[in-house]
Amino acid sequence: MGACMEAMSGFFNRPKNTNVRISLPAVCFVWQIVMIILFGVFMRYDKESDAHWLVTKKEENITSDIENDFYYRYPSFQDVHVMIFVGFGFLMTFLRKYSFSAVGFNFLIAAFGIQWALLMQGWFQSLDYTDGKIKIGVENMINADFCVASCLIAYGAVLGKVSPVQLMVMTLFGVTLYAVEEYIISNLLHARDAGGSMIIHTFGAYYGLTISRILYRPNLNQSKHLQGSVYHSDVFAMVGTLFLWMFWPSFNSATSAHGDGQHRAALNTYLTLTASVLTTVAISSLTQKKGKLDMVHIQNSTLAGGVAVGTAAEFMLMPYGCLIVGFFCGIISTLGYIYITPFLESKLHIQDTCGIHNLHAMPGFIGGVVGAITAAAATESVYSAEGLANTFNFNGAFANRPPTIQGGYQAAGLAVALAFGLVGGTVVGFILKLPIWGDPADENCFDDEVYWEVPEDEESIPPVMGYNHHMANKYTEQSDSNFTVEQSSN
Amino acid sequence: MGACMEAMSGFFNRPKNTNVRISLPAVCFVWQIVMIILFGVFMRYDKESDAHWLVTKKEENITSDIENDFYYRYPSFQDVHVMIFVGFGFLMTFLRKYSFSAVGFNFLIAAFGIQWALLMQGWFQSLDYTDGKIKIGVENMINADFCVASCLIAYGAVLGKVSPVQLMVMTLFGVTLYAVEEYIISNLLHARDAGGSMIIHTFGAYYGLTISRILYRPNLNQSKHLQGSVYHSDVFAMVGTLFLWMFWPSFNSATSAHGDGQHRAALNTYLTLTASVLTTVAISSLTQKKGKLDMVHIQNSTLAGGVAVGTAAEFMLMPYGCLIVGFFCGIISTLGYIYITPFLESKLHIQDTCGIHNLHAMPGFIGGVVGAITAAAATESVYSAEGLANTFNFNGAFANRPPTIQGGYQAAGLAVALAFGLVGGTVVGFILKLPIWGDPADENCFDDEVYWEVPEDEESIPPVMGYNHHMANKYTEQSDSNFTVEQSSN
Amino acid sequence: MGACMEAMSGFFNRPKNTNVRISLPAVCFVWQIVMIILFGVFMRYDKESDAHWLVTKKEENITSDIENDFYYRYPSFQDVHVMIFVGFGFLMTFLRKYSFSAVGFNFLIAAFGIQWALLMQGWFQSLDYTDGKIKIGVENMINADFCVASCLIAYGAVLGKVSPVQLMVMTLFGVTLYAVEEYIISNLLHARDAGGSMIIHTFGAYYGLTISRILYRPNLNQSKHLQGSVYHSDVFAMVGTLFLWMFWPSFNSATSAHGDGQHRAALNTYLTLTASVLTTVAISSLTQKKGKLDMVHIQNSTLAGGVAVGTAAEFMLMPYGCLIVGFFCGIISTLGYIYITPFLESKLHIQDTCGIHNLHAMPGFIGGVVGAITAAAATESVYSAEGLANTFNFNGAFANRPPTIQGGYQAAGLAVALAFGLVGGTVVGFILKLPIWGDPADENCFDDEVYWEVPEDEESIPPVMGYNHHMANKYTEQSDSNFTVEQSSN
Repeated sequence: MGACMEAMSGFFNRPKNTNVRISLPAVCFVWQIVMIILFGVFMRYDKESDAHWLVTKKEENITSDIENDFYYRYPSFQDVHVMIFVGFGFLMTFLRKYSFSAVGFNFLIAAFGIQWALLMQGWFQSLDYTDGKIKIGVENMINADFCVASCLIAYGAVLGKVSPVQLMVMTLFGVTLYAVEEYIISNLLHARDAGGSMIIHTFGAYYGLTISRILYRPNLNQSKHLQGSVYHSDVFAMVGTLFLWMFWPSFNSATSAHGDGQHRAALNTYLTLTASVLTTVAISSLTQKKGKLDMVHIQNSTLAGGVAVGTAAEFMLMPYGCLIVGFFCGIISTLGYIYITPFLESKLHIQDTCGIHNLHAMPGFIGGVVGAITAAAATESVYSAEGLANTFNFNGAFANRPPTIQGGYQAAGLAVALAFGLVGGTVVGFILKLPIWGDPADENCFDDEVYWEVPEDEESIPPVMGYNHHMANKYTEQSDSNFTVEQSSN
Repeated sequence: MGACMEAMSGFFNRPKNTNVRISLPAVCFVWQIVMIILFGVFMRYDKESDAHWLVTKKEENITSDIENDFYYRYPSFQDVHVMIFVGFGFLMTFLRKYSFSAVGFNFLIAAFGIQWALLMQGWFQSLDYTDGKIKIGVENMINADFCVASCLIAYGAVLGKVSPVQLMVMTLFGVTLYAVEEYIISNLLHARDAGGSMIIHTFGAYYGLTISRILYRPNLNQSKHLQGSVYHSDVFAMVGTLFLWMFWPSFNSATSAHGDGQHRAALNTYLTLTASVLTTVAISSLTQKKGKLDMVHIQNSTLAGGVAVGTAAEFMLMPYGCLIVGFFCGIISTLGYIYITPFLESKLHIQDTCGIHNLHAMPGFIGGVVGAITAAAATESVYSAEGLANTFNFNGAFANRPPTIQGGYQAAGLAVALAFGLVGGTVVGFILKLPIWGDPADENCFDDEVYWEVPEDEESIPPVMGYNHHMANKYTEQSDSNFTVEQSSN
Repeated sequence: MGACMEAMSGFFNRPKNTNVRISLPAVCFVWQIVMIILFGVFMRYDKESDAHWLVTKKEENITSDIENDFYYRYPSFQDVHVMIFVGFGFLMTFLRKYSFSAVGFNFLIAAFGIQWALLMQGWFQSLDYTDGKIKIGVENMINADFCVASCLIAYGAVLGKVSPVQLMVMTLFGVTLYAVEEYIISNLLHARDAGGSMIIHTFGAYYGLTISRILYRPNLNQSKHLQGSVYHSDVFAMVGTLFLWMFWPSFNSATSAHGDGQHRAALNTYLTLTASVLTTVAISSLTQKKGKLDMVHIQNSTLAGGVAVGTAAEFMLMPYGCLIVGFFCGIISTLGYIYITPFLESKLHIQDTCGIHNLHAMPGFIGGVVGAITAAAATESVYSAEGLANTFNFNGAFANRPPTIQGGYQAAGLAVALAFGLVGGTVVGFILKLPIWGDPADENCFDDEVYWEVPEDEESIPPVMGYNHHMANKYTEQSDSNFTVEQSSN
């Protein structure tokens, strides 16, 4: 048994091989082919994207093409789409030498995750029992984007420490878990979660944090010199921050009820986010020497309000209620970066590269609580009877559910999201710990060179011989300089 | 009295203290709390964002949710939102070491300004006299974004020379002044200003220029080495330019009348902007040695047409009229950068960091004039009777106003905007001159280091000891190089 | 005759003069003035952007302003607009010292091309024969953007090797050719091409490639040191890639039929693009040493699916059909970068800077073929009778065309696009070869300095004398370093 232990230990501690030339293409090809087959068997257009729409219009007495759900939701979808690919992608470019991986792997796993999410969510939500097919349209596109958002959040915790193959595996399981918890929370518990404080953020964040805990690297300081930012990488990250911040109202309103639902969700989110900016700046300045601002806080904590208002965005939270939520979440998130992230790393061994605990976990949890309280406090006088039924979708089997009970189910939903994150993350974490996925050694973390052809820096490029131009001289000087100095210093 | 003068002079000339660790958090917290209270007292949802929408639909016989103003205006709002945060923010990143402040302070003051604008504009425009509450929806979101645009324009004049606390004060007063002049111009004079050539650009630019005049720094050349751009900061600025340029049609059409009003305003702006690009390039090339283009012109003057067509965008300006406006504004704006900006600085002591006189003041003024002329020349044959009333909103007390009179009121509106900018800027300028706001010394202007934790440059980061990897060597060489050379040159 | 040959040879081989101080402003001014005159004579608002809209509404019994085409198409237009200016512009910023030209010239020729496209396309498509005027609205804006897209694709082939004046000439002819081939393909052949696989991509790519062949530079390796990327220029290029990728669903659906047409085109494009990402990553990793990814592939081949689904996007391609198209195009495009681009350069003397053969030519051609097959295979059972007529616009003279015949006309359309590209490119290539356009010498290719005032690098800026601040020291050290080393190495 000691030999077995030793063998296992050897298995887990053998030198890292980051060559993914077989595994990455294999995973991409096999999974893409599986997607094609499953799409062939299951996936069809829904009645609004099918060419039979003209027939549907007649049958359902729809007078105008503008009533096609496309026109209600497509602008919001495009904003969400930008958040997924530019928002999340660029937010993670802040590391000095990991921008290719931040944007590139974000791109890869989102593109894969969307396909798998369309299937998984389709089976749970959009299955047409008459023919056994999944029928998709613009709302499925939004929901698939939502689903991969949870995996991109999880990516933030392990940024720089995993291989693209690990990310693909993490996304496969993440999407699967998401579809199940979404079904339990939305359909079985009938909890509302317009912007996904629970379903997206709480689940995604704890999923990522748990995985990061299990993949704990005690010697990660060997790549410490790459864990910071440089000037321009921080500016790139602001591209991500701002597109997330600006389009968050679309995110939280994208799947809300037509009319006042979408309108109010966008307005509430817009208000909440403005308050987060002010308190983030305040705390950042207050806690630094000389009152200087820290870019990490501005890039992240300004967004906390958007996360925290996710569940309640479509409720009658009232404008001042939004500001209050934004006010506290900006404070809590910024304090999290200053005090909790170091604590998590040193005491709990959770290495959280992007600080998703501060941006998604805590605000997501708060969002679930705010949603439960606001739901429980809903009254007919504030909503009107029709408005209450419409906002909480009290119809069918849930027609007689009172708001107070709804509040309880909201809280239950939050617990489900949390449990899925923690348990799912534990299982997936151990799968990812298998030494077959090509993850980098500690000293190669946060370094694009491991998985990317990185262009040589200017100074190391030899000029063309005999080439006589002042620009060329600049390069020559530079490389001569390095060369000469090296000589003299050896 | 001499002693008093001396004391005052000492008060104004004492060494600069840029530590904002108390003042910035204090301003953010206090103002945010005040906002929460005022929002609690005054701010409610309007009938289109309230859960009573279903009741409203019945009462007003609205057949479809798509008639909710959200679907008419939200896509335009999101484009405007991008202009405010990414457009203005990134346009100002061109300075070599001031990108954090450009994007970050733009973010801060816009987020604060939006809240205050919702209140100020709400009291003037959206107050429900039956219950004393302000009722808000998507149009208020657009108008709040418009309002802060004027303050962000003003920021362009003082970029690099003021503290974040000064910017907050400038925004507080700027929004207040804006709400009053907007009320006078739009409601009392009943002048039309769809894209805000007068209300936003003329006011904002002269407000900022006047403040910059009063804060004149005779020794600003002490930070001259930071006043230029570097290669990548110019590319970042183009992100700002392009998002402003592309979305300007949405800006000018966002609050126009449903139907042809929005349609025509977008089309007119689109056309005008294309012409500005060509004449900007022409003048830039013509006035430089060897015909080389100057990035400053491309980043700014290409946008002048959008400013200048702001007032007349919803009028029947005709496609060729748009091209003419764009043609001349591209020329005037570029010539402004070449001849007027240096003149303003040397003769009038107006230091205009971003050249807002060329991008906003002159084109805004031209826009007001074009608007007045086009309004005065409007006829029923061109507009149709219904179209004329609809475009100029000739109803209620203004039902019988003839277009020629309207032209006069348009001109009066321009004068009001100008007066508010000049007088307001003077007052606020003297307030900002008080030596309590933490503004930087002349030699620290245009430097992020004063207010931000700036990441160290690559070469100055010590590699981890004993760390044996080719990447690390790169850093080592670089720092060795500097070290050795320093040694030898001393 | 020998003397004549010699004279001609001397004429073509005289030393390059890249001074465009006369030619560039002249072209811009003259063409802009011509545009104003032609717009004055021909261009008017259509019934949906004209102030007579209220009259039209009554006449045509339109019940709501939301039926104005503006609300169906403007969000898509804005996405397309972003693709044209930010997407194409930033995609080309990957070169280390050519970002100004990439974004700036893209901006210039798009702004010019849009005006000329409105006229050319207007004469062919939107001429009102009752008054001889072109009537424009939002759909014309989209079509003009589409038209210039073809010229921007062509720019990709010659990037870095031509002057802005040549680009203007290339755009003038490109737009003209486009309007003619579009008329032949869309109106005469009545082929469908929603996203322009044939009309935009096939034409644009072969137009650019043919021009690049004729402008072949045997000694282009003299500027080889500028043909690569640097780290941050690759990240900037990803801004372009992602905005193209995200908004491609809007591109392919922008002019489709209201309702299911737009809905399905967006959905199909969304699906296709996800598959391209996975196979691009797979092939990129598989073909590099150690399985490392190449940024060139990620920046370009991930988009190939969007090009290839352009024609068939509005058809009933089925979700799995989309994934298959994306699957193969990602593979083909990436293999193109690895094997075909070097072959084209060495054997066929086609220097294709951005690899448009892999991103636009091959996928565009495939898209035309996929469109022809899918059209020929269309049946009433899949589309419904109304849906078939609506999707293929089988009305008027084409009311009885069967799908199989439609497939033949689709193939004919592809041949027309190809022919226009090859023949047009040949003619325009020889025009551009005239030595009067200010193109750069071989050793100055890919260098912004030829046409732009480029900011000096940090190290070469002299610090202000006596200026005593730690920031200044940094600059000083740096320049001292260079200075000292130069001394010692000479």
